[in-house]
Amino acid sequence: MNKNIKVIAFDADDTLWDNEIYFREAEHEFATLLEPYTHNRNIVEALFKTELQNLPIYGYGIKGFTLSMIETATELTHGDLPPALTKQILELGKSMLNRPVTVLEGVESVLQQLRQQDYKLMVATKGDLLDQQRKVQQSQLKSYFHHVEVMSDKKEDNYQLILHQHTIAAGEFLMIGNSLKSDVLPVLNIGGHAAHIPYSITWMHEHVDQLPVNPNFRSLKHISEVMDIMGLK
Amino acid sequence: MNKNIKVIAFDADDTLWDNEIYFREAEHEFATLLEPYTHNRNIVEALFKTELQNLPIYGYGIKGFTLSMIETATELTHGDLPPALTKQILELGKSMLNRPVTVLEGVESVLQQLRQQDYKLMVATKGDLLDQQRKVQQSQLKSYFHHVEVMSDKKEDNYQLILHQHTIAAGEFLMIGNSLKSDVLPVLNIGGHAAHIPYSITWMHEHVDQLPVNPNFRSLKHISEVMDIMGLK
Repeated sequence: MNKNIKVIAFDADDTLWDNEIYFREAEHEFATLLEPYTHNRNIVEALFKTELQNLPIYGYGIKGFTLSMIETATELTHGDLPPALTKQILELGKSMLNRPVTVLEGVESVLQQLRQQDYKLMVATKGDLLDQQRKVQQSQLKSYFHHVEVMSDKKEDNYQLILHQHTIAAGEFLMIGNSLKSDVLPVLNIGGHAAHIPYSITWMHEHVDQLPVNPNFRSLKHISEVMDIMGLK
Repeated sequence: MNKNIKVIAFDADDTLWDNEIYFREAEHEFATLLEPYTHNRNIVEALFKTELQNLPIYGYGIKGFTLSMIETATELTHGDLPPALTKQILELGKSMLNRPVTVLEGVESVLQQLRQQDYKLMVATKGDLLDQQRKVQQSQLKSYFHHVEVMSDKKEDNYQLILHQHTIAAGEFLMIGNSLKSDVLPVLNIGGHAAHIPYSITWMHEHVDQLPVNPNFRSLKHISEVMDIMGLK
């Protein structure tokens, strides 16, 4: 890959550690809790719809997700929401915020090797500020990173701002992540480099049909392949 | 004040625009909603207690506040929370997130004059990432600021990180805000300068009894006095 790359940014959720799987588990538990109180058989779809509606004001993250679960529950039960259920949903949200961090296999070794080669490493993630910082801390990966950026969204403008603030030229920047929509396409569009490493599951909202065709893009199967594309193996 | 100051950071909520007053209004509305369903006459105190308990996992901001309102409501009603009330609390939280921004009197003129003097200006605020960015945008003050930092907390470590990331020496940094606890004391403790401008009301959690005695500290009555302490008037 391009020899000009100086800064390598990693998406966090589902790139450095497990995340989406916990949301799927929570959705499943939410549906199980709610089933006895609603005739709606598409509880998870209803939740997703509420989440999308609330995204412009809540943003990404577990707190907004919890509020959307409560809203969906009040709607699907048509005024018959048992108070105990509200409490269980609040607990479900808290258990997600307290969940230990499981770093994905191969991540630390790649970070170690890249740091030895003097690349500047960053975390570029979206979600709740405090929760993302907690996960970086708990992952014990923090010392590898020069900077941790929690973004309200991952659009072209958000990436432009990071490059500007850290005085990085787009051609010097490589973004690595599991979401084509959030980690790859906006970065390619502003002239940066991007590598896609799929996670086993993708949130519907992050789904993109086709891999981009762009000389600055690489599609990887595993994070260890980062060493190959950087010519370090 | 010290001639070495190059960077001036402003707290946002209750320093650049109204904020605490909206939380007080929401607390009042919450208590009014709940009163018919509980014997507890200290609804606002109960909410405050829940907020403090949840602070380590929710952090600051309206989303955590809304979740704490719902939790308090489920507790105070002992399993008799009317579902319609849950919906009203969700709406109350959303109305806070959609509230227009009211910039405080005198703010824009001070920012204008400081920028003309080539000071680097920053926003240093805590709370929900997306909500704080929305307010900066809506305030129409964004163009005055070189950088907007949304912090998960305002402790010494958090300030150290900002100084480090922007290569600012503590002695070059002046923080201006309404909270002695969050804007003044931690900054003085790391060797920076700080000016306190009280807002008409202070959240209990931010309360500090005594003004610090420190040559790097100034107590102001109004933001326009920033020009005096910087020797620009």
